[in-house]
Amino acid sequence: MPMFEIFETFITAQGDFTEEDLRLLRSHTTVKKIRRKEFLLQEGEICRYKIFVAKGLLKTYVVRHDGVEHILRFSPENSWATDHESMKTQTPTRINIEALENTEVILWTRESLDESCKTVPAFQTYMGRLMENALRITHERVLINLSYTTEEKYEDFITSFPDVFNRVPLHMVASYLGVSRETLSRIRHARIKQ
Amino acid sequence: MPMFEIFETFITAQGDFTEEDLRLLRSHTTVKKIRRKEFLLQEGEICRYKIFVAKGLLKTYVVRHDGVEHILRFSPENSWATDHESMKTQTPTRINIEALENTEVILWTRESLDESCKTVPAFQTYMGRLMENALRITHERVLINLSYTTEEKYEDFITSFPDVFNRVPLHMVASYLGVSRETLSRIRHARIKQ
Repeated sequence: MPMFEIFETFITAQGDFTEEDLRLLRSHTTVKKIRRKEFLLQEGEICRYKIFVAKGLLKTYVVRHDGVEHILRFSPENSWATDHESMKTQTPTRINIEALENTEVILWTRESLDESCKTVPAFQTYMGRLMENALRITHERVLINLSYTTEEKYEDFITSFPDVFNRVPLHMVASYLGVSRETLSRIRHARIKQ
Repeated sequence: MPMFEIFETFITAQGDFTEEDLRLLRSHTTVKKIRRKEFLLQEGEICRYKIFVAKGLLKTYVVRHDGVEHILRFSPENSWATDHESMKTQTPTRINIEALENTEVILWTRESLDESCKTVPAFQTYMGRLMENALRITHERVLINLSYTTEEKYEDFITSFPDVFNRVPLHMVASYLGVSRETLSRIRHARIKQ
């Protein structure tokens, strides 16, 4: 399926979009194919795009001064990635967005995102809901970080992201959950034995 | 200062509000005084209010099945508290909102919040920005949870919430940061010695 049609199928399930709305949205975006290990954003840059993943998988992460990588988010098909803060305030980002697989994305600049929201009310409504969802999920993540045991974190990850789980190595799951690879490996073995 | 005037002072610094806007907002809200240790929301209830703190301090937390309390948020003067998810979907909450001091709050129900946003565009704009900020802060918190050392978490808390820090016992700071009270106590002593 051509890339923008994947987005059309996705977005028309999220609200009432007319043919004209879809034409407008298409006119405000660019599509791009990137290869595995290619970056869409690197620390120190100003974030230029809000990214929709039509195909593939992105990893959003920070690297601490001790060189350790912490994964903030996985973005598989039909999900989004960006650094809102950097994009909005035009300040350098601390995050990196890298493709874990060959990936196809649809890109909005800050201007084209504003324009899309202004000219397509259903898109603005969707963006508001996307923000609310992101807040809900991030609150949930804080709660999980604080209060779940490692076993519970692992179970929750498998349930919440079944398709991501099968596509990334265990050390990345550990990095996302903020637990050691060894502990996670032990839990997985215990789980398989059951 | 009467309670609603505290809110007026706060909100007029956030956008362009007319006298009529303020009158409308006032008509959509109720004010309430609650005593220390009183609850505004308890686990199992459906969240009824979006809460603005005019005076005092609230604590938002969950209790895990093992009885351990995890603090999600402190809300001092001029900040907000609620469970959006429970309020929006009318489902029972898992969180508790409790006063840590005698507290004065302004309350919006779901209906009055919708009404306020509909009739006062500047309030809707502010609410959108509040949501964006909440998302930014919560993302930041995930990052801190995952990647900061306990020392760094403690330093960041002191810098980010200087007035909260002086008003809550150390074990609550530990609960908020997701670190043990003993570790935090050790860090504080080392810091005082410096």
